[in-house]
Amino acid sequence: MTWVTDDNAALLTDLYELTMAASYHAQDMNEPATFDLFVRALPEHRNFLIACGLEGALDYLERFNFDDEAIGYLSSLGPFSDSFLSRLGELTFSGEVRAIAEGEAVFAEEPILSVTAPLIEAQIVESFLLNCITFQTMIASKAARVAISSKGRSFVDFSLRRDHGADAGVKAARAAFVGGAAATSNVLAGAFYGIPVNGTMAHSYVMAHEDEEHAFRTFMKDCPQGTVLIIDTFDVEEGARRAARVAHELAPQGIELRGVRIDSGDLANLTRSVRKILDEADLEQTKIILSGDLDEYQIERLIADEVPVDSFGVGTQLGTSGDQPALGGVYKLVADARGPKMKLSTGKGTLPGRKQVFRVSRNGTLDHDVIGLEDEVADGRPLLDCVMKGGRRTSPP
Amino acid sequence: MTWVTDDNAALLTDLYELTMAASYHAQDMNEPATFDLFVRALPEHRNFLIACGLEGALDYLERFNFDDEAIGYLSSLGPFSDSFLSRLGELTFSGEVRAIAEGEAVFAEEPILSVTAPLIEAQIVESFLLNCITFQTMIASKAARVAISSKGRSFVDFSLRRDHGADAGVKAARAAFVGGAAATSNVLAGAFYGIPVNGTMAHSYVMAHEDEEHAFRTFMKDCPQGTVLIIDTFDVEEGARRAARVAHELAPQGIELRGVRIDSGDLANLTRSVRKILDEADLEQTKIILSGDLDEYQIERLIADEVPVDSFGVGTQLGTSGDQPALGGVYKLVADARGPKMKLSTGKGTLPGRKQVFRVSRNGTLDHDVIGLEDEVADGRPLLDCVMKGGRRTSPP
Repeated sequence: MTWVTDDNAALLTDLYELTMAASYHAQDMNEPATFDLFVRALPEHRNFLIACGLEGALDYLERFNFDDEAIGYLSSLGPFSDSFLSRLGELTFSGEVRAIAEGEAVFAEEPILSVTAPLIEAQIVESFLLNCITFQTMIASKAARVAISSKGRSFVDFSLRRDHGADAGVKAARAAFVGGAAATSNVLAGAFYGIPVNGTMAHSYVMAHEDEEHAFRTFMKDCPQGTVLIIDTFDVEEGARRAARVAHELAPQGIELRGVRIDSGDLANLTRSVRKILDEADLEQTKIILSGDLDEYQIERLIADEVPVDSFGVGTQLGTSGDQPALGGVYKLVADARGPKMKLSTGKGTLPGRKQVFRVSRNGTLDHDVIGLEDEVADGRPLLDCVMKGGRRTSPP
Repeated sequence: MTWVTDDNAALLTDLYELTMAASYHAQDMNEPATFDLFVRALPEHRNFLIACGLEGALDYLERFNFDDEAIGYLSSLGPFSDSFLSRLGELTFSGEVRAIAEGEAVFAEEPILSVTAPLIEAQIVESFLLNCITFQTMIASKAARVAISSKGRSFVDFSLRRDHGADAGVKAARAAFVGGAAATSNVLAGAFYGIPVNGTMAHSYVMAHEDEEHAFRTFMKDCPQGTVLIIDTFDVEEGARRAARVAHELAPQGIELRGVRIDSGDLANLTRSVRKILDEADLEQTKIILSGDLDEYQIERLIADEVPVDSFGVGTQLGTSGDQPALGGVYKLVADARGPKMKLSTGKGTLPGRKQVFRVSRNGTLDHDVIGLEDEVADGRPLLDCVMKGGRRTSPP
């Protein structure tokens, strides 16, 4: 399998970054330059974003290098001079990074990350930094919306199967956790990041047994810790009654039915019926977990309708940020050795200079931000911190 | 950095797959079972899908294993018995895979992939297979739509910066190529898969020079092979005139201006003006490349309006399948030792049994498909081929 790893991540860039770098090399243009990574405007249906992805970006920068295999491939492409290729072979990232902390709210035009480095380095890392930061910021932002709509109920990231590839699987779980998810179903994300992992059972388990009640009994016996039964393989209300019967049968053995999950159908009405069935069976403590292509809008409606749901599994819409599956992050030259820089393309202008974002609160909540120059004095808490100097983190991850 | 690799990919699964497997282990339930991976219905705005992702899926299955670190992590979670963990430690994938070839059109209910394996193995691989196949199939399908709308003009994958993480970056480039892209800007995808890589220049290059004309001159001299200049950093028409002047100045040195790229503004009218400027400067052979959040609809309109464009760079909308960023693939138990199986959940029923898809053509084009049982005799070309037996590919990748 061809996996992106520390050994080849430097090649995960757009060809033009290297072509431009080759020209900078030929021209001996390598003075420090500052690039800001930001979104020009908030996407539709987003009033804020949650910064995420910084740790991965810093890992990448600390380990940035082109190994012999990478140089060999670049050489095979033709246009690069030996002088440039041997320069690349020795290149590491030696610059400075200022960034807004993961988990902070960010808004349009605010640099989530600002890189100051010799021009060649600063240019080549563009594509990776955009890929890393904008994707994770988008997912953390979606998760924060789900958290707000859940009004204190917990939700779990169920998105792995619909995430865009393997790296998205683990990073979406992490970003969802940064944005407010309580746990993830993704085991590797648990192993990588120490996120709580959580799971129930699938329809296939029920179908692999001769009948639903037998499946429930077997699963509760074999997995007695915090068991959640899925009750919509055949008929939800019948499933709830079977789950209740099995729960009573196994209670004397100390096995508790923690919850039931409903994954299809008219969730609002089914949840009400199931709550009634469980309560009438003296299973008031058994939780109801809902899943099935949920998003923040459906969750908000379920809660507004006082549906007696306890928690949510949120998959596709969370892990792909379904209504806004791309965040238009950009990485723009804002200063170089000759001073502040700005671009004037139609609708794509940039604010020049090295910046600071000052966050002003009133009565404990965010009131407004001021985007100023780095050396300005302004009210408010400065959000951009120096997190990397000379290519090394200023504090451990 | 925490990267998904062959060493840890077995953990890239939902916890419930392992919980169910633990119960199957406890019950000694491990007879062969067949799971079909398919979409229940085509998404809106899709009349067909292009199968993609099989090679990555087979790589994963061939190398499937839980190493000591993985077992150690699973042990730390608590609920798994030592007997189950030592079973996992020895587990490989020993099953059979039948699949539709990458690049084939597929439709609703048709198994893109069908796994027959001992129940425990078949269950644990579900999450990865869905993640791998549905994402890449979605991107290849989007690329095919872009290819159709481009009517013979070429397009290049520019999506890396907006793809969902690093693995999505390389896999989207590959899937776009399967679906009809001519090349990718993604260097690592070129190195991994031998896809042609292609690039132009960025606004930041222009801004790093004292003026646009100087930037153009330097870039053409330093990168004389197939140079494409970006002309919308300041004013597009002025940019085109400057590009033309520099092209004439450098022509005596044998340096040719292959193309200009416009990335913002009113693309239709700007392209017409730029074509006129280039033609009047005797640069009829210089191509115009358009980019800037294009999708198949915009491309179709540009071509219907007879805009004199030569090729396209397509990024965000291609690499995220922007209008349909998730494909509702499912992986369902359809047969086991006791025979065919079906699920009856509301709106989520499944067709039981091991299947074959027969493709019937009329006059050289696809007329219809018949989904039958594997052992049925029917007209048409059978699409599902046995690609893995006993956990090994039936032919090299």
